[in-house]
Amino acid sequence: MSGEFELIKRYFAPLAGKFSLNLSDDAACIPAKTGFDSIVTKDIIVEGTHFHSHDPVDAIAYKAIAVNVSDCIAKGATPDLYWLGLALPKTITEEWFTEFAIGLGHAQTDFGCLLAGGDTTTHDGTNIMISVTMAGHVPAEQMIKRSGAHDQDDIYVTGYLGEAALGLVCIKENSGDKYSNLIERYLRPNPPIGVQNSFTSIASASADVSDGLLADIGHICESSNLGCIIKSDLLPVSVLANQFLEEFPEHKALIWSGGDDYQVVFTADKKHCMEIDELSKSSGLNISKIGHMTTEKNIQLLDSMGEPVQVDHRGFKHF
Amino acid sequence: MSGEFELIKRYFAPLAGKFSLNLSDDAACIPAKTGFDSIVTKDIIVEGTHFHSHDPVDAIAYKAIAVNVSDCIAKGATPDLYWLGLALPKTITEEWFTEFAIGLGHAQTDFGCLLAGGDTTTHDGTNIMISVTMAGHVPAEQMIKRSGAHDQDDIYVTGYLGEAALGLVCIKENSGDKYSNLIERYLRPNPPIGVQNSFTSIASASADVSDGLLADIGHICESSNLGCIIKSDLLPVSVLANQFLEEFPEHKALIWSGGDDYQVVFTADKKHCMEIDELSKSSGLNISKIGHMTTEKNIQLLDSMGEPVQVDHRGFKHF
Repeated sequence: MSGEFELIKRYFAPLAGKFSLNLSDDAACIPAKTGFDSIVTKDIIVEGTHFHSHDPVDAIAYKAIAVNVSDCIAKGATPDLYWLGLALPKTITEEWFTEFAIGLGHAQTDFGCLLAGGDTTTHDGTNIMISVTMAGHVPAEQMIKRSGAHDQDDIYVTGYLGEAALGLVCIKENSGDKYSNLIERYLRPNPPIGVQNSFTSIASASADVSDGLLADIGHICESSNLGCIIKSDLLPVSVLANQFLEEFPEHKALIWSGGDDYQVVFTADKKHCMEIDELSKSSGLNISKIGHMTTEKNIQLLDSMGEPVQVDHRGFKHF
Repeated sequence: MSGEFELIKRYFAPLAGKFSLNLSDDAACIPAKTGFDSIVTKDIIVEGTHFHSHDPVDAIAYKAIAVNVSDCIAKGATPDLYWLGLALPKTITEEWFTEFAIGLGHAQTDFGCLLAGGDTTTHDGTNIMISVTMAGHVPAEQMIKRSGAHDQDDIYVTGYLGEAALGLVCIKENSGDKYSNLIERYLRPNPPIGVQNSFTSIASASADVSDGLLADIGHICESSNLGCIIKSDLLPVSVLANQFLEEFPEHKALIWSGGDDYQVVFTADKKHCMEIDELSKSSGLNISKIGHMTTEKNIQLLDSMGEPVQVDHRGFKHF
């Protein structure tokens, strides 16, 4: 096994941009970008909680980046740089680093960000912990907050819901190749990169969907001091997820309560309705209207008859 | 135990500055500071490697911040904001959070930085892992790099060397109250906050001393494509450390190879000699000249007779 500095030089320096000083200094140096605000986010992924020891190593790296990209996009920001913190068991191999760097490279290509620095350390435990801090830029004072929603704003979500959570069920229940695309979505999340600039002029409030739709729209409701009505038959469910749910209907609630989607839920004034449809078409990204904000401060999930859907739990809880 | 969001509200929101959006959004938002560059650094500390389960919890928090502050200061930057990543065993208690927040508060007061965001997660292991990313500011294009040293530049180090490493020996050998100030230095590092602005006009190259003096001056040598001569009798050793080494001379090498000092080693043109003496006096900070840079590309540690000191290992290695 190579030493720490050799590992950095071999696997990580090729992924680093100019601001990183080639990963050979104590810090990255980033010039001020007049007219833009920096947004900075940090999401940790931990073995056993966010990924599993048998997941492909390149997918673990990809996920570590993607879960931060979704935060950037939700804020209307374009991802630029990331800092990588690795706390690894002493048993880690050089092959692991090779695969991990491949996954980082794929994520950098897909999301347009560069490695800027980080820290690699070992510990006596058996769990891999990956902490990524990501910086992006947004036109000054245009970051989309969770707190900006208004009563009667429409609620939209990007992509499809529940695929990652259903994919995890497939892994646990060893459901075979039929649902491998759901598993793929669990392994390699696909946050809606590319639409972040359009979001800043459309969305009144926004959050990423990481803990489950109801939990995350709940954050917007709480910050905006409002409630919402979500219509279950409007929730975007992919063809494959529908097929899975026909076979295993007991997992249906994962559509609104499953975590790991890394899509974006946002609110917008009704006047933006056409614009959002056009954005959906031009970007090739599914953007679905799923409900609206209310002054009544609770979160209601209603079925096609307008009846409340029984919600057991609203999302992933760490504690 | 409270939920994740309740924990954030109770323990961390009181530590957060305005850019954090009260820790209730997906990201922090930081306006561009014209005329300044941002420097960003990330240091992880892990239980069993950088601290131990019996260390006071407030000291662990303090250390997590201090180890990043030393990187900022070494770059000539003033620390502003930090992002806190916690991966915690599921057995963590609310009392732990109380003590941890107290330590963060002390560090914020001592170093002048504010919490801006982060992520808290649990894992199945038993180790506590703390990942801090810190942002500071430095006048545009004045960040002090590792690569700027010139032949014959003097080498300086702030504070005293080896105290933290000797403190760790004291803990392991249960040496009692006599050396409690060494233990204190291991628990709560004291990076030289306050002199960073002066460094930008004095230092040609700089690094923090975290892996051990010889390892860290080695980084400057490598980046600057030079070597150096360090004089062992010029190395700053505190009265208490000297007393300890008289009793336990077998630990003397920890002065130049022990980690966890979190001081700053820097190089400077000889013309700055008087200025550095004055800075040392005006700041009340010990700043010692310990050697000089050479074109011969190795690191020589010489005793008072000019004879090479036997160096077994140069610093802490993670892999």
